[in-house]
Amino acid sequence: MGDAPPEVTAACPEGAPVNLDFGRQSRRGYPEAVFCAGKTIDQIRLIAREWQRNAADQQALFTRCSPEQAAVVAAELAGTAYDPIARVAAWPAEPPEPTGGLVVVVAAGTSDLPVAREAAVTVERLGRRCELVVDVGVAGLHRVLARVDLLRSAACVVVVAGMDGALPSVVAGLVSCPVVACPTSVGYGAAFEGLAALLAMLNACAPGVGVVNIDNGYGAGHLAAQIAAHVPMDHGQSSVSDQFQ
Amino acid sequence: MGDAPPEVTAACPEGAPVNLDFGRQSRRGYPEAVFCAGKTIDQIRLIAREWQRNAADQQALFTRCSPEQAAVVAAELAGTAYDPIARVAAWPAEPPEPTGGLVVVVAAGTSDLPVAREAAVTVERLGRRCELVVDVGVAGLHRVLARVDLLRSAACVVVVAGMDGALPSVVAGLVSCPVVACPTSVGYGAAFEGLAALLAMLNACAPGVGVVNIDNGYGAGHLAAQIAAHVPMDHGQSSVSDQFQ
Amino acid sequence: MGDAPPEVTAACPEGAPVNLDFGRQSRRGYPEAVFCAGKTIDQIRLIAREWQRNAADQQALFTRCSPEQAAVVAAELAGTAYDPIARVAAWPAEPPEPTGGLVVVVAAGTSDLPVAREAAVTVERLGRRCELVVDVGVAGLHRVLARVDLLRSAACVVVVAGMDGALPSVVAGLVSCPVVACPTSVGYGAAFEGLAALLAMLNACAPGVGVVNIDNGYGAGHLAAQIAAHVPMDHGQSSVSDQFQ
Amino acid sequence: MGDAPPEVTAACPEGAPVNLDFGRQSRRGYPEAVFCAGKTIDQIRLIAREWQRNAADQQALFTRCSPEQAAVVAAELAGTAYDPIARVAAWPAEPPEPTGGLVVVVAAGTSDLPVAREAAVTVERLGRRCELVVDVGVAGLHRVLARVDLLRSAACVVVVAGMDGALPSVVAGLVSCPVVACPTSVGYGAAFEGLAALLAMLNACAPGVGVVNIDNGYGAGHLAAQIAAHVPMDHGQSSVSDQFQ
Amino acid sequence: MGDAPPEVTAACPEGAPVNLDFGRQSRRGYPEAVFCAGKTIDQIRLIAREWQRNAADQQALFTRCSPEQAAVVAAELAGTAYDPIARVAAWPAEPPEPTGGLVVVVAAGTSDLPVAREAAVTVERLGRRCELVVDVGVAGLHRVLARVDLLRSAACVVVVAGMDGALPSVVAGLVSCPVVACPTSVGYGAAFEGLAALLAMLNACAPGVGVVNIDNGYGAGHLAAQIAAHVPMDHGQSSVSDQFQ
Amino acid sequence: MGDAPPEVTAACPEGAPVNLDFGRQSRRGYPEAVFCAGKTIDQIRLIAREWQRNAADQQALFTRCSPEQAAVVAAELAGTAYDPIARVAAWPAEPPEPTGGLVVVVAAGTSDLPVAREAAVTVERLGRRCELVVDVGVAGLHRVLARVDLLRSAACVVVVAGMDGALPSVVAGLVSCPVVACPTSVGYGAAFEGLAALLAMLNACAPGVGVVNIDNGYGAGHLAAQIAAHVPMDHGQSSVSDQFQ
Amino acid sequence: MGDAPPEVTAACPEGAPVNLDFGRQSRRGYPEAVFCAGKTIDQIRLIAREWQRNAADQQALFTRCSPEQAAVVAAELAGTAYDPIARVAAWPAEPPEPTGGLVVVVAAGTSDLPVAREAAVTVERLGRRCELVVDVGVAGLHRVLARVDLLRSAACVVVVAGMDGALPSVVAGLVSCPVVACPTSVGYGAAFEGLAALLAMLNACAPGVGVVNIDNGYGAGHLAAQIAAHVPMDHGQSSVSDQFQ
Amino acid sequence: MGDAPPEVTAACPEGAPVNLDFGRQSRRGYPEAVFCAGKTIDQIRLIAREWQRNAADQQALFTRCSPEQAAVVAAELAGTAYDPIARVAAWPAEPPEPTGGLVVVVAAGTSDLPVAREAAVTVERLGRRCELVVDVGVAGLHRVLARVDLLRSAACVVVVAGMDGALPSVVAGLVSCPVVACPTSVGYGAAFEGLAALLAMLNACAPGVGVVNIDNGYGAGHLAAQIAAHVPMDHGQSSVSDQFQ
Repeated sequence: MGDAPPEVTAACPEGAPVNLDFGRQSRRGYPEAVFCAGKTIDQIRLIAREWQRNAADQQALFTRCSPEQAAVVAAELAGTAYDPIARVAAWPAEPPEPTGGLVVVVAAGTSDLPVAREAAVTVERLGRRCELVVDVGVAGLHRVLARVDLLRSAACVVVVAGMDGALPSVVAGLVSCPVVACPTSVGYGAAFEGLAALLAMLNACAPGVGVVNIDNGYGAGHLAAQIAAHVPMDHGQSSVSDQFQ
Repeated sequence: MGDAPPEVTAACPEGAPVNLDFGRQSRRGYPEAVFCAGKTIDQIRLIAREWQRNAADQQALFTRCSPEQAAVVAAELAGTAYDPIARVAAWPAEPPEPTGGLVVVVAAGTSDLPVAREAAVTVERLGRRCELVVDVGVAGLHRVLARVDLLRSAACVVVVAGMDGALPSVVAGLVSCPVVACPTSVGYGAAFEGLAALLAMLNACAPGVGVVNIDNGYGAGHLAAQIAAHVPMDHGQSSVSDQFQ
Repeated sequence: MGDAPPEVTAACPEGAPVNLDFGRQSRRGYPEAVFCAGKTIDQIRLIAREWQRNAADQQALFTRCSPEQAAVVAAELAGTAYDPIARVAAWPAEPPEPTGGLVVVVAAGTSDLPVAREAAVTVERLGRRCELVVDVGVAGLHRVLARVDLLRSAACVVVVAGMDGALPSVVAGLVSCPVVACPTSVGYGAAFEGLAALLAMLNACAPGVGVVNIDNGYGAGHLAAQIAAHVPMDHGQSSVSDQFQ
Repeated sequence: MGDAPPEVTAACPEGAPVNLDFGRQSRRGYPEAVFCAGKTIDQIRLIAREWQRNAADQQALFTRCSPEQAAVVAAELAGTAYDPIARVAAWPAEPPEPTGGLVVVVAAGTSDLPVAREAAVTVERLGRRCELVVDVGVAGLHRVLARVDLLRSAACVVVVAGMDGALPSVVAGLVSCPVVACPTSVGYGAAFEGLAALLAMLNACAPGVGVVNIDNGYGAGHLAAQIAAHVPMDHGQSSVSDQFQ
Repeated sequence: MGDAPPEVTAACPEGAPVNLDFGRQSRRGYPEAVFCAGKTIDQIRLIAREWQRNAADQQALFTRCSPEQAAVVAAELAGTAYDPIARVAAWPAEPPEPTGGLVVVVAAGTSDLPVAREAAVTVERLGRRCELVVDVGVAGLHRVLARVDLLRSAACVVVVAGMDGALPSVVAGLVSCPVVACPTSVGYGAAFEGLAALLAMLNACAPGVGVVNIDNGYGAGHLAAQIAAHVPMDHGQSSVSDQFQ
Repeated sequence: MGDAPPEVTAACPEGAPVNLDFGRQSRRGYPEAVFCAGKTIDQIRLIAREWQRNAADQQALFTRCSPEQAAVVAAELAGTAYDPIARVAAWPAEPPEPTGGLVVVVAAGTSDLPVAREAAVTVERLGRRCELVVDVGVAGLHRVLARVDLLRSAACVVVVAGMDGALPSVVAGLVSCPVVACPTSVGYGAAFEGLAALLAMLNACAPGVGVVNIDNGYGAGHLAAQIAAHVPMDHGQSSVSDQFQ
Repeated sequence: MGDAPPEVTAACPEGAPVNLDFGRQSRRGYPEAVFCAGKTIDQIRLIAREWQRNAADQQALFTRCSPEQAAVVAAELAGTAYDPIARVAAWPAEPPEPTGGLVVVVAAGTSDLPVAREAAVTVERLGRRCELVVDVGVAGLHRVLARVDLLRSAACVVVVAGMDGALPSVVAGLVSCPVVACPTSVGYGAAFEGLAALLAMLNACAPGVGVVNIDNGYGAGHLAAQIAAHVPMDHGQSSVSDQFQ
Repeated sequence: MGDAPPEVTAACPEGAPVNLDFGRQSRRGYPEAVFCAGKTIDQIRLIAREWQRNAADQQALFTRCSPEQAAVVAAELAGTAYDPIARVAAWPAEPPEPTGGLVVVVAAGTSDLPVAREAAVTVERLGRRCELVVDVGVAGLHRVLARVDLLRSAACVVVVAGMDGALPSVVAGLVSCPVVACPTSVGYGAAFEGLAALLAMLNACAPGVGVVNIDNGYGAGHLAAQIAAHVPMDHGQSSVSDQFQ
């Protein structure tokens, strides 16, 4: 009898488990996103269903979404797109037509790719153009210097980096637009799950860096999309200094 | 022979492995609860049996109780109720008739629900009425402002929140009763398993907030039940300021 | 010329430096308090003057108030009382007539006295009766056990302790009312300015403990006054267990 | 002889102690600023002199500048303006004609004023219009809600707060523009010199928040000026939701 | 081919993987112990074999030893005893005849039992008598006070506790012998894997407490055995104060 | 009028500010010590007077005692001895006749001397013989190895060290008696005020080390005196291994 | 349908996932290494293939390489050698002919072996001779003293240690060459995953110690190979002090 | 009488307060240095006198030496040189004739100068040539790139940086020689007294970086001098890659 199911009886008053903020689109101009980590399959299904019923005119974004959770979303919201590296499910299938300035997402190393792609997908879904550049860590400066023109054409640069978190300082020193720095938990022991990169970014010796939470590609992309919103699409620096060319 | 069981011989003097504090009910007015995490199935069975024999007149609460552990409890204490979200097993099946003031449990997000329900079940089992409100994070202030009347009718509000732990400050600024703040481990990397919310709550800019341990819904509910014990049942603020209405 | 005053010109737009929340009394039932640390003498004078003009019917409390700051307050608000150990200035001279249950403030050691007195003054100013007990650390258990009757007559006990922060667990295990735990920064190096006591209190092995910020006697007293507000004045446990007598 | 000056001989090779980055203006669009804390009076004088000689066409900003240091700057750069609260010296006397969108700087409490003013002065000196709003902490929500129209007219909002760092979440939930969050070291012990506010801001439950270093008003202002650079001056939300009105 | 084993070639110079300190018995008076966590089955077998060959006259202790590892030890060292709760394997089957004073091991809660038993087994194996007392946390003071006579007859008391780590202060205040305090990783989130208890114990407000590493029952037992080594076996306090009787 | 003294009125109920535990001598066998840091001159005088009146048969120890505080003690307790390096005042002038085993106090460097002397004075005042050895850090191993004979004749060794805290491991590996490890706050930045040494000592790779609080020489000496209490005075290892000779 | 794969559509712009720095060999003199942890099997295969095509004249090193990953590398780069303890795959099969001085790698305990071997393999692959010494922790000083001659013949000593991290101080005090200290995450709770050893090593009381990241054997070996590069092969101390002999 | 000097009597056994390790020169090849912080004037004088008497053939280095302490040193050791920025006193007046390779010391900012000079003086005193380069932070990459030739001619580069500690990664990526990274405590709040820079340096994404303690210029210089000891004086990279030229 030890392994039989317990005699369970309902306890605790019922509280509505889901209370979506569909007003965010009108209040803030951007729709709410659903953070899926820690939510059950049933909760995800319920949310997707609520979305279908009450906010079918709003774009939906599900972050930290496992393939299993994405399947449930797709079952309720037909045409859902899924990026398995970024672990983001988005609906409808296509992102909106982009407006505003260009966002460039820069990742220091290959291990930072999942977070960088989460940022890039978010940027596109919130209505901006996005370019993704990978493997430009400061240990080989020529790699980032080779992309200075692209960086200087951006309305906002998102820098994703773990380990020493040194890349935002370097990038911010090269451009005039704001830099959004997103630390990742990549690194050996004394990275302390991203703490080292986080602190380095908060202490970036070049001003113009705004930091978001560790591994929070969604937050980085959201902030970048807001920053680029009112920058003209043809923005870019034609008079690039030729110091590195 | 490598994978055969070792030749084990009894070592170490015997110490009574269970020494329950059944006097707590008379000494403090509330019965002891059993924290099940880290206890073996055998230890749980032994405890349930001891309860049946020596304290059958006292209510029993098993927290952090897995379904397997709950099954063992139910086998010994017939009629045990189990809440699989809160992971609480309680006996007897029904909570006592409530006395004292109302406790309102408020959860910032859906991910905080398990802790919030643990608090709510505890409140009811210790003899208070309880209302549970979910998904009222400060990112959408209108949601909490819409519940000001309910909050102001409470003898105590329990606020359960992870991430920035900002909700207790907001709630405490709206009510005259004490607020019990319970941080959760929900959040991205720099939440540091609840540390961010914990520190924010300890620094709540509105006075009247008492903080309990991270994810400790039981402790939050227990404290709230004590606070509400001597508040009249018909307590409530009839003269609510109409600042937000 | 190096040590001559600079040619200073006004820079930065003017922002109103003081914006007191006089509505707190009606909204929450308790008046705002002024945290004086880090405020200039001029800012304190301005605040005291504003109080005199706009809220002369509300009691005023100035915490972390130096003797110099208190002198300025007293110049604007005649009859201000000052407690140099608690560093609290209060106006008018006398606290209100007490209502509700008794609050007992317990300090583990003499070094905790300033914080304990800040709590006690706050309790009285917010309208509750208060008893202060000092030097009852757990290293000499007989001292706290000798006060069990007083502790059990309280509607709320405030425990102020530094070092190992062990006293709240012991007190909470002896009484049925809520315990407000206030850690202090007293101790040798590994006390880490109160962190050790703070963590111990958050992990109190007896339920019923709500923790406030390190050295925050005001916050402890405020919470205790709220908890005791609706407890009958003749509250007390007549049927004290005689386990320790 | 013990207190006579030592027989000192030059040791260590000479290294040029000052190496200003006057190219930053052309490379990034914003001039370098001089962080004065920890620099000697002689170093400050040398820097001011270098500025006068080599970059007299560039605006100069000296942050964390003591009155003594400001006097030295003013002696070299005639017409220097000094803000003793922000501890910023700026030259020439007047800031440039503003372009781009409005920046609103919001401070939770009076104690956050020095950092908020440092941010505001920086914003103006880098060429943006700025409004400063003080004492709108979340403990009295009506205060921030009363300024929603102003907040929604901003191209960027800088939120300066210590203690629980809860204000950025609340503000970001009300506006569509980016929020720059600047934690301050204001608070009781468990604020840990701004760590609590920093962590809370990094965990802001509303997306759209970029965090800068503790007490770094200069960095906050710089980032905000960059964000607002390309936003039309007549930007503003005419269609404000009337949820709070 | 992807899942085929790689073409491996020996790399790296050979270093002797095991280099036991069999001289510790003569140098320090106590034999070396083998910490098994993180060691492979092969390494454990090699060590047991070396012991059999080179130190068959020395007692062997294997700590943090899994049942699988214990089986391997028993295969090499016939008669090995194993305590599955303490996870200690010891050889030969029986501990030595005890000398010196009594060691009392006290555990605050049932969850602390594995560490407490590891301490107790170590005490016995190093040649002292041992009594184990469980479930005497400070939340129910009467439980520890009921054992004062036993505690006062000890040459050394080992206190094992997680959560608030308050028990060593209380025990040290009651006895004249040294107290060895061993924090455990038991507790809710803010226990931070034993950090809270560790700090509390280092700040014990009663002098006479020596602290060992978190969950290090072996270290606690070893130190206690050394402390009790030269205390007469008939040691004990006949003139116990009757304060608690 | 701004700098005139404020109109102060007594606030807060009176609590007895001093409540000495004179029963500790009979309960624990060692008298209470007075920790002077943070106490006012008046409080010290009151304590010294109480001692004179109520416990003139008990030895008195005042730790962290400034010369000013010591003068007040000496005025009340004639013949008080003062050690300005250890900052300890003791009364009566001479320590008691020693009993039990020898305690050796070892300091890694000259900067650790104040803490080491505090430990040594405490050891003598609590009735044990004491030898003090300074400047035997592990960077010059020959220095500690040259004292092996002395170390092996001890009933307890107290090791005082800052920086890397490596000395206790080395000493504990050389002797059979218990080692009391006292970390100091000596060191460069990453010593973090003694945290580095504290953690190293808790992780000492040789068993038999009990750790006390950072810079707590009193606590180290007290524990050592207890450990050595029942060791015969002629204790010592006659058969020292000649490994290092 | 809940467990069916989701309707996935490509999202996010393509970014080149791999961007190897083959220029590092000519720029720095040492080839890039591939950190495999967190990389997918497909990414590893792609990298190995790129290496084969574009840098077949450069030696390849894959660190933190699982057997499965190593198999993929070996399939692309024939003759790859794999060390399953160090978890390093290297190609071609044999390391280069050694030049420069000898590197001695010293591991405190058996549990430190994986990190020590990673260091040793790296040293050999970067072109230096290497000797590996294991189990010479400071708890048994005679073990390290017995190897003084070998240590003094080294151009660089790598010390790998967990727990108290005391070994680098001891070794650095015995030799004239630089010491590279590599902390490991080995130890009980308060080792905090290598933090204790890291801090101890940064605070080594003997100068001449450079510290690398926790468990970063590759980094330690790389630095040591650089240090030994220009030291003559016949380097060594013929005039060893006989202090320990 | 309260402010009269106390009746002090000698307490505590005498321990030799100074025990210099003059054997270090022959054992390690480098003389001991005296860390003056925390030492009294009398202790410094005693040490200088001992040096004069017992080691007049050895060079003396006094670090963290105040002008007052330097005066005392100079009185005992005639011809002592003092660097007031580095706070180093050295004797005799001139450093030894340099041997081995060049050491380049690089400081990110002017505020890092004291630590950088302490490193440079140490390098020279231990017998190496040294070049000091200041103000080459990564926020203006052109500054460090302009010195690539110098950096590549070094046998060892010492990088001194606070804030984000990003410079070592950048430098190590440009050179083949070892980099010694020394974090400083320079920066805003979240620099946490050098912790941010320390962690960033430990996580440097370019291998070949050895880290020393925060603000420990002496340790950095010592390690660099050892690394450069056996590098030929004419070392240098003639075949510099022209990637940045």
